[in-house]
Amino acid sequence: MAMKLYFGPSSPFVRKVRIAAIELGLDKEIELIPTAVVPGKPNTDYAREANPLRRIPALSIEDGEVLYDSTVICEYLDVRAGGGRLIPQDTARRWRVLTNHALAQGMCEAAVLLRYETWLRPEAQRWSVWIDDQWDKIDSGLEWFENHDEALQEPVDLAQITLGALLGYLDFRSPDKDWRQATPKLAAWYATLRERPSLRETEPVNPPT
Amino acid sequence: MAMKLYFGPSSPFVRKVRIAAIELGLDKEIELIPTAVVPGKPNTDYAREANPLRRIPALSIEDGEVLYDSTVICEYLDVRAGGGRLIPQDTARRWRVLTNHALAQGMCEAAVLLRYETWLRPEAQRWSVWIDDQWDKIDSGLEWFENHDEALQEPVDLAQITLGALLGYLDFRSPDKDWRQATPKLAAWYATLRERPSLRETEPVNPPT
Repeated sequence: MAMKLYFGPSSPFVRKVRIAAIELGLDKEIELIPTAVVPGKPNTDYAREANPLRRIPALSIEDGEVLYDSTVICEYLDVRAGGGRLIPQDTARRWRVLTNHALAQGMCEAAVLLRYETWLRPEAQRWSVWIDDQWDKIDSGLEWFENHDEALQEPVDLAQITLGALLGYLDFRSPDKDWRQATPKLAAWYATLRERPSLRETEPVNPPT
Repeated sequence: MAMKLYFGPSSPFVRKVRIAAIELGLDKEIELIPTAVVPGKPNTDYAREANPLRRIPALSIEDGEVLYDSTVICEYLDVRAGGGRLIPQDTARRWRVLTNHALAQGMCEAAVLLRYETWLRPEAQRWSVWIDDQWDKIDSGLEWFENHDEALQEPVDLAQITLGALLGYLDFRSPDKDWRQATPKLAAWYATLRERPSLRETEPVNPPT
């Protein structure tokens, strides 16, 4: 196939790229390469071949170049599909979508830091202040989108895709977190979004152990 | 002034924007607004006014819109200055610079996580595996740039600015880290870069306590 995506089945950052590829009609040109990255267990092959940061996703393209991070890959795919579909090219809307995307992306980062803190880190070394701080960032972001539902209007853009990946990750990793109650407009929007084939085909699952 | 930058004097992400603004000749149009963000001490005013993630920098522009994160702000400033100066607009070079930037940015993120882990977090809750993992990401990135010095050629781009901010932050926060010995080409490049006014005027300092 034309492109190879270094991939894990639970990462919200990988899912964002997969959703983008399906929305853009490019998913059939992308082969998925399962890649394990866990803090403390350095995947040195992956660091050497693809991304020295050992983060997924990375995308290998025809000429052998490897692109990362997820945002760069999504912009690359958007341009490859004609441009301006997920990230507007006219500058007034571009900055708004990219800023909304940075918010959703930061919420994903907080959610992954929470996962590392509450699952990977030994119990005695966990710090409740850090945990509360990450949840506060996520909650503040959810509230922002609830109060700015103009950001949730069609057409689906990169900010919305990333927010969808975040909400799917919350349901996957923190099913007891009752985020829908506090943000009903967001909950209604997500109920519609998740029916799209791009989200249905990419639901997060645990990697094989 | 035309724009306001929510700012802290030690953040490598803020510094990246300040270097970019000086390189683009836009710094005189930007007022700096001192803004404290520390995990566990939520700055709720800032979260409400500017960035729900409570991360700096954010940039308030003429029409009242607030843009973040540092990468979005740098692209905005680049376009405002004519476009294509810090981030190439022709796509072959664009993906290379944006990927190199993502590497330098991820190294900055690792360095800030290290700072939180070894300074903010109570000693009993620190985890050596996490500390080693962040240093490994930084070291792998330094080695990558040492072996790809084509990425360090003129003209100065967003990846180089971000790498400069990272190296300045390492010298500031980890002066005992002898990174120059392992990466002599990078050290020589940085010795030249840091003589630019944009770096000299933005050396990191501790915030007032």
